[in-house]
Amino acid sequence: MRHFEEELNKLQRRLLEMAGLVESAIHLSVRSLAGSSEEHLVLRNESRVNQMQIEIDEMATRLLALHQPMAQDLRFLTAAIKINSDLERMGDLAVNIAERAVELKRRPALQPVIDIPKMAELTSAMVRKSLNAFVGRDAELARSVLLSDDEVDDLKNNIYRTLIHLMESTPSTIAAAVDLIFVAHNLERIADHATNIAEGVLFVVKGVDVRHHAEEEQ
Amino acid sequence: MRHFEEELNKLQRRLLEMAGLVESAIHLSVRSLAGSSEEHLVLRNESRVNQMQIEIDEMATRLLALHQPMAQDLRFLTAAIKINSDLERMGDLAVNIAERAVELKRRPALQPVIDIPKMAELTSAMVRKSLNAFVGRDAELARSVLLSDDEVDDLKNNIYRTLIHLMESTPSTIAAAVDLIFVAHNLERIADHATNIAEGVLFVVKGVDVRHHAEEEQ
Repeated sequence: MRHFEEELNKLQRRLLEMAGLVESAIHLSVRSLAGSSEEHLVLRNESRVNQMQIEIDEMATRLLALHQPMAQDLRFLTAAIKINSDLERMGDLAVNIAERAVELKRRPALQPVIDIPKMAELTSAMVRKSLNAFVGRDAELARSVLLSDDEVDDLKNNIYRTLIHLMESTPSTIAAAVDLIFVAHNLERIADHATNIAEGVLFVVKGVDVRHHAEEEQ
Repeated sequence: MRHFEEELNKLQRRLLEMAGLVESAIHLSVRSLAGSSEEHLVLRNESRVNQMQIEIDEMATRLLALHQPMAQDLRFLTAAIKINSDLERMGDLAVNIAERAVELKRRPALQPVIDIPKMAELTSAMVRKSLNAFVGRDAELARSVLLSDDEVDDLKNNIYRTLIHLMESTPSTIAAAVDLIFVAHNLERIADHATNIAEGVLFVVKGVDVRHHAEEEQ
């Protein structure tokens, strides 16, 4: 049994290591929007993240097969498989943002859309909090992530409105504005995945499935 | 053991039932782009799909906990958990398309972008094939889904180019064209999830993880 706990701890450490790479990819991709030239680091991260996803899946599957985890351990393992998949998708989304940053550098510069850095900051905070909630089995922190999701959606809607208005008034900005619409979309998706992770934490801690607001309906 | 097999069959039937709802949601959302008024059916489907996702997750987790599945059965259960999550996301993406269809009806009509129906058809075929491959444990069919993914990407890139050109030449089309860009994006994402399902089938049948082209690297 002690061996099993060690294996679970090892799995959690691997997930956190992967999360660190993903957080760094998000950070670098957002910085590259602001003019840094670190897109290649995001791409280098990606292949490492993909490799880790496969390793973590194998670890979790092996633990399910060799032991008969019950209750919280079982919930931890099924949540780990999902968090793994969320992290991998977040890494892909960071790559998409970095690719848009490359495109944007080839286009005439736009006025900065002030809400994009704000949205990026809020999204990064959600990612960090969801992982801290996972490490600390902290239901309160996980709930705070769920609450931030609406704020991110509002920011995204403002950004879309601003950009569509800009395209209509200045058609030469269209290609760049479409890139930024996708940046905002990718940030929103990253926030959605942080929300999934926070829901996974509540599932591990409380055994309650809060997806699709099942909790509210009860 | 016979009981366990019956449970696995039941799980598979539930996944297929859910897949049927998702396929229907995709079909209805694409039809609503062409002028039908069936968006509300997509929304009604969604809450059923969400409910089924939770039920299927519970079934799969219970089977993992109560039995000690090995080899192909274990791979089937972990693949089922992932396919479940892919199907739920496809349902969300169909809802997004239906919401764009509602927006588009409030805007001045655009010239039809001919590649969107073509992309929708190809994507639907990928969804159907990936599920048939799952039912029949058909590795060849699963591989054919992986091949279609590039074709979908090419169509999407053509659609983006056409729409950006349209916006630049006719700024009054901007809001509607952005809606259609997101429709194409959502179709691409649905195709990606069909690809994930096909990769899951190969994992169940062959025990080979083909994600991130791991197979090519071997």
